[in-house]
Amino acid sequence: MPMSTAVLDTVADLCRTVAALHGELTRNELVIWTAGNVSARVPGEDLMVIKPSGVSYDQLTEDTMVVTDLHGELVHGRFAPSSDTAAHAYVYRHMPEVGGVVHTHSTFATAWAARGEPIPCVLTMIADEFGGEVPVGPFAMIGDDSIGRGIVDTLRGSRSPAVLMRNHGPFTVGRDARSAVKAAVMVEDVARTVHIARQLGTPEPLRQEDIDRLHDRYQNVYGQHQER
Amino acid sequence: MPMSTAVLDTVADLCRTVAALHGELTRNELVIWTAGNVSARVPGEDLMVIKPSGVSYDQLTEDTMVVTDLHGELVHGRFAPSSDTAAHAYVYRHMPEVGGVVHTHSTFATAWAARGEPIPCVLTMIADEFGGEVPVGPFAMIGDDSIGRGIVDTLRGSRSPAVLMRNHGPFTVGRDARSAVKAAVMVEDVARTVHIARQLGTPEPLRQEDIDRLHDRYQNVYGQHQER
Amino acid sequence: MPMSTAVLDTVADLCRTVAALHGELTRNELVIWTAGNVSARVPGEDLMVIKPSGVSYDQLTEDTMVVTDLHGELVHGRFAPSSDTAAHAYVYRHMPEVGGVVHTHSTFATAWAARGEPIPCVLTMIADEFGGEVPVGPFAMIGDDSIGRGIVDTLRGSRSPAVLMRNHGPFTVGRDARSAVKAAVMVEDVARTVHIARQLGTPEPLRQEDIDRLHDRYQNVYGQHQER
Amino acid sequence: MPMSTAVLDTVADLCRTVAALHGELTRNELVIWTAGNVSARVPGEDLMVIKPSGVSYDQLTEDTMVVTDLHGELVHGRFAPSSDTAAHAYVYRHMPEVGGVVHTHSTFATAWAARGEPIPCVLTMIADEFGGEVPVGPFAMIGDDSIGRGIVDTLRGSRSPAVLMRNHGPFTVGRDARSAVKAAVMVEDVARTVHIARQLGTPEPLRQEDIDRLHDRYQNVYGQHQER
Repeated sequence: MPMSTAVLDTVADLCRTVAALHGELTRNELVIWTAGNVSARVPGEDLMVIKPSGVSYDQLTEDTMVVTDLHGELVHGRFAPSSDTAAHAYVYRHMPEVGGVVHTHSTFATAWAARGEPIPCVLTMIADEFGGEVPVGPFAMIGDDSIGRGIVDTLRGSRSPAVLMRNHGPFTVGRDARSAVKAAVMVEDVARTVHIARQLGTPEPLRQEDIDRLHDRYQNVYGQHQER
Repeated sequence: MPMSTAVLDTVADLCRTVAALHGELTRNELVIWTAGNVSARVPGEDLMVIKPSGVSYDQLTEDTMVVTDLHGELVHGRFAPSSDTAAHAYVYRHMPEVGGVVHTHSTFATAWAARGEPIPCVLTMIADEFGGEVPVGPFAMIGDDSIGRGIVDTLRGSRSPAVLMRNHGPFTVGRDARSAVKAAVMVEDVARTVHIARQLGTPEPLRQEDIDRLHDRYQNVYGQHQER
Repeated sequence: MPMSTAVLDTVADLCRTVAALHGELTRNELVIWTAGNVSARVPGEDLMVIKPSGVSYDQLTEDTMVVTDLHGELVHGRFAPSSDTAAHAYVYRHMPEVGGVVHTHSTFATAWAARGEPIPCVLTMIADEFGGEVPVGPFAMIGDDSIGRGIVDTLRGSRSPAVLMRNHGPFTVGRDARSAVKAAVMVEDVARTVHIARQLGTPEPLRQEDIDRLHDRYQNVYGQHQER
Repeated sequence: MPMSTAVLDTVADLCRTVAALHGELTRNELVIWTAGNVSARVPGEDLMVIKPSGVSYDQLTEDTMVVTDLHGELVHGRFAPSSDTAAHAYVYRHMPEVGGVVHTHSTFATAWAARGEPIPCVLTMIADEFGGEVPVGPFAMIGDDSIGRGIVDTLRGSRSPAVLMRNHGPFTVGRDARSAVKAAVMVEDVARTVHIARQLGTPEPLRQEDIDRLHDRYQNVYGQHQER
């Protein structure tokens, strides 16, 4: 079925946005070589825009982006979609509130994932953004629905937009691709800070009621609305 | 009450300066996303210039800066002021010698803050800039006067221009915004160096009389006067 | 014996490629000053293109590259070849499938090399790229065939394109220079991530059958073929 | 006594060189704010060129450089000389073979200095450049000859061009300013690598005879002569 002009415009916009957001991954040193990816749901359609597989970040332009359906089948694009497409697609199928997904192997978040240890909520920034500890998802093989299922099962029991997939790395979600990228930047930052804090002692977790108040305020008051 | 032309000129200058100083936060890798802020007191007025809330660092220009009174009420600007405005305002109300305030979540300083542990004075650079250990302030909720009160109460008992707010991150002050930014850069640098030194042993603190001599010399002799 | 025009064209291409690939070493912070090098075999000839000795990375252009035979004797170029030329040449003589070799002293890989400890296969990325743990090679003096022999002996018993030469640093190989550079980037990344994971616990290694499946898939399915 | 035209030309050249070499300090992340300095001896004269005190690295041009005699007295320049001038001058007076001196507070080297622990010779790169462990100098107050004396006394008993001044940071020397900057880059690199190696075990030191052979070869064979 051909896309309407309005959908084509939306897809073109998202290709630009998603290509540009990969620049945040490199700028924040979350990825090396080709090992990370951003996708965005096409609102109202069973479609998503995602990074092509094995293409360098400095060659990622809107023209190299790939459009697939929500089972990862190629709909439009000159390249094969990211090898993590199945995981992104599974998340979009099962979490309708999610508009963007990001996967990286960022160093400190992946180190917590390698140990299978959640990041404890010992900083106001963690309460703000993650609403509690950052949870660990199961070990899952790459290539089928296992990773997607692990992400969805873990995030459903949490306020966190980030999950540390065991022996693998972080996946983050958001209401749009930019929010998911923000969560990817933040999870690496708190993973690093809490790691360093823990090297010389054990920081005390925040109290649940303080976490709740901080999280509520941050989600509802902070920012200029477009940036919440 | 409308501002005089002279005050308007001063405010415009400070907007330029404060916008530019945020570039030092990113250049020195003290902040990610929108999570840090610089403010400056408008000399002789009950006004301050501060970063808008939730705006990216690469979109911060003098035109996006916000002017508030010293209770954090918006006086001029297109955006809402930083969510840390109440803390900055409290400091200006209670420390008349302070002309600039900076807040970051820089990694190593925040790690010491997460453990609630002061940075010991084991380096000549710490004696020079901080005049002793870098102190820890109390845990305080975001949004009211608690943070400002914690900053002021802690800094009053210390020669340090930096305080590590528990489970949160560093705040620094200076006679102007540039000095406060310098202190923010320096506190992260010494937090990192002492952390690394401590990982493989326990560095010996400097003697109090050496700290006093180094601090006195640095505050009174070093630099070209405009850079003291 | 003079080179044919076709060989001269290939050599000129490789000089451009190898010069440009040194930019990846600096961009990925694998080298400082002049301490790392990339080479490429000239296909079908007993020749290789390699970095000159002791020349800064920002002065490396195609014109400064050096051509030697596979015993390290200078064939073409204005500069002396890298002091690691003998090791590169030994690898090309004994591993006909190798088209590119890289040597760095990248921080975390060199730290594992200093302890003589292989990097365990605790991440999907390690299974993908290295097919198991990253092995350690013997301590060998610089300047004769010892290093080359140590690299070849170690890599022959492994699926890994990287070897950690004891008390020295990593060497990587690939079917071309770009693949060897990719392996150099990846070995530093996993060396760093596993180091950090190990600082606060012991990550569990992947099962051999999962490693085999991941490695097979990555080597045969991932990427756009030109990037495999 | 006025300088001859030939000396003026040499001084102008050195001002350019020394200003540019400060760019290597920032590029290699050895310094923050204004906290590090490079100097060069004016060959055949009792003069040196050094960084001005408290001037930002991005404002350092040849015109801001300062010329002093070898007791640190200002001979030419619009700014006050670096507050470390006395230490540089002492080195030039007592080590006639030294043509360049560098001081930084680079993180890892300063961490070893904070513990007063020499960096053991566990890497071929340390044998190459430093000819053995990197030694620790005494704690000395800033402002008189104490630091210079500590540097000279320590370096005289060592092949190392670097000394870790206790609770302060590294000083390096070279036959010219570029060599001293190289040593400053290398000492931070090996300080970092050995620190990281030591975090998870104890790397075995090289044997003395291997250190001697590596050092001899590197000092006499490596590089294009201008870059030794």
